[in-house]
Amino acid sequence: MAEKIQQIQENPDKEKAQLKQRLSRIRHTIMVMSGKGGVGKSTVTANLAASLSLEGYRVGILDGDIHGPNIPKILGVEGQQLLGSGDGEINPIEAAENLKLVSVGSILENQDQPIIWRGPMKHTIIRHFLKDVNWGDLDFLVVDLPPGTGDEPLSIAQIIKEAHAGSSPFAIVVTTPQDVALLDSRKSVKFSRVLELQLLGIIENMSGMACPHCGKPIDLFKKGGGELAAQELKVPFLGAIPIDPAIVQDTDNGTPFILGNDDSAAKTAFRNIVKEVLKMACP
Amino acid sequence: MAEKIQQIQENPDKEKAQLKQRLSRIRHTIMVMSGKGGVGKSTVTANLAASLSLEGYRVGILDGDIHGPNIPKILGVEGQQLLGSGDGEINPIEAAENLKLVSVGSILENQDQPIIWRGPMKHTIIRHFLKDVNWGDLDFLVVDLPPGTGDEPLSIAQIIKEAHAGSSPFAIVVTTPQDVALLDSRKSVKFSRVLELQLLGIIENMSGMACPHCGKPIDLFKKGGGELAAQELKVPFLGAIPIDPAIVQDTDNGTPFILGNDDSAAKTAFRNIVKEVLKMACP
Repeated sequence: MAEKIQQIQENPDKEKAQLKQRLSRIRHTIMVMSGKGGVGKSTVTANLAASLSLEGYRVGILDGDIHGPNIPKILGVEGQQLLGSGDGEINPIEAAENLKLVSVGSILENQDQPIIWRGPMKHTIIRHFLKDVNWGDLDFLVVDLPPGTGDEPLSIAQIIKEAHAGSSPFAIVVTTPQDVALLDSRKSVKFSRVLELQLLGIIENMSGMACPHCGKPIDLFKKGGGELAAQELKVPFLGAIPIDPAIVQDTDNGTPFILGNDDSAAKTAFRNIVKEVLKMACP
Repeated sequence: MAEKIQQIQENPDKEKAQLKQRLSRIRHTIMVMSGKGGVGKSTVTANLAASLSLEGYRVGILDGDIHGPNIPKILGVEGQQLLGSGDGEINPIEAAENLKLVSVGSILENQDQPIIWRGPMKHTIIRHFLKDVNWGDLDFLVVDLPPGTGDEPLSIAQIIKEAHAGSSPFAIVVTTPQDVALLDSRKSVKFSRVLELQLLGIIENMSGMACPHCGKPIDLFKKGGGELAAQELKVPFLGAIPIDPAIVQDTDNGTPFILGNDDSAAKTAFRNIVKEVLKMACP
């Protein structure tokens, strides 16, 4: 790692060319963002990527949440370590057919170990993941970001834009219908405008719930706020995913819920969201 | 703001003395942290601070979540602007008797505006809030932090430790019982050990739920995981707060739920947590 940083500092032009060459093999980048944490960003990322790979697209996931990297756990590859290819490259973890993954969680020897890094160090590792990972040819690189509008989303957007020489990453904003979450997700929409990302739209997660015993509706995080915010901010609304205890279960068990056997309202909703994303990203 | 930064750069010794003098009037600092977002950190912060102020303690809240400042909304003072006192100081917002507040949310003219700042800028505003805010004499300064172990918790812990010349802030780690949340909160416990914070313990939020219609238990985010993690990591367990739709409602309406009229399981649980905190912080 220290060696890599040294190398970047010594030869910025060569490093830029390598990054550009690497990113030229990635057709689309989708940044999954949210203003508030805990709205289901990583779950959406993992299930979107898994859905796209099932459709036959070649998909990579970059887990950009340096302090809380949950993607390896959600995809059931927790504990698998990232390995070098011998010529200075890193091989991504193959989570399934057409589905590759890179995460800080896959370089930690002890999963309890906190990454106590300030911004510049985070920028360096993100650049490293984009430049030195042997992604091969990808149709989609889906990036899971930490909540907010700080160093990580800023670094990823800037590095990709710089290397693509103008072409912008796509962005999806995930929110829950709670007012406090909506307040923060408006900031993410504005952020994506300032950075000139191509905003695919807003997903409303944890939208309504039915009691699994009596079937009556439970008003936990409310419903419809994400759709209203999308109208207000004049951005597309990609769909609403209801609360489903099975999603938490699947996430903890290392299976994207979209792959489960039973047919649920959440799964149908998610499938429609994937269709919308494909319609917009690959018209 | 730019003027302030200029001043800090020009006279670091004077600035250090001012910070030390200001912090000498704050008896205890409690950093409310979490590994994962959306576990209820801000709700715990606001209700802990409100509870302590009701007991007669003089309490300040520093909203350290720069990108998603939700404390003003939860305390019902959204839209109130921070004002200067004329002599270069900032007057905190008085949310209630014995309860003062400072937040980036209270300096934004437009609440949708994202704060697109990298780490060093965040360090500066946090230092500014600790040094130039006219907190007066406080028994407790409760700090709401963004999730993770990055710039914000690092800056606050280091600034307070440096100015107190050795005395450490207290820390509380909030988690939900989900595996992915527990994975991340272990990192926060390790973080507080590395920085030698005095860890008061773990709070398990969103712990179990009963259907408001039929009363049957709903296994949403599971139950008991926070308590188990506390045992494993050998840190005190402060208590579990069940999921209650009324908390979301109160939070969106700008009332700390602890002040509501009805008596709920969540409220009783929270009162016991406050007792535990007081026992440990003021023995």
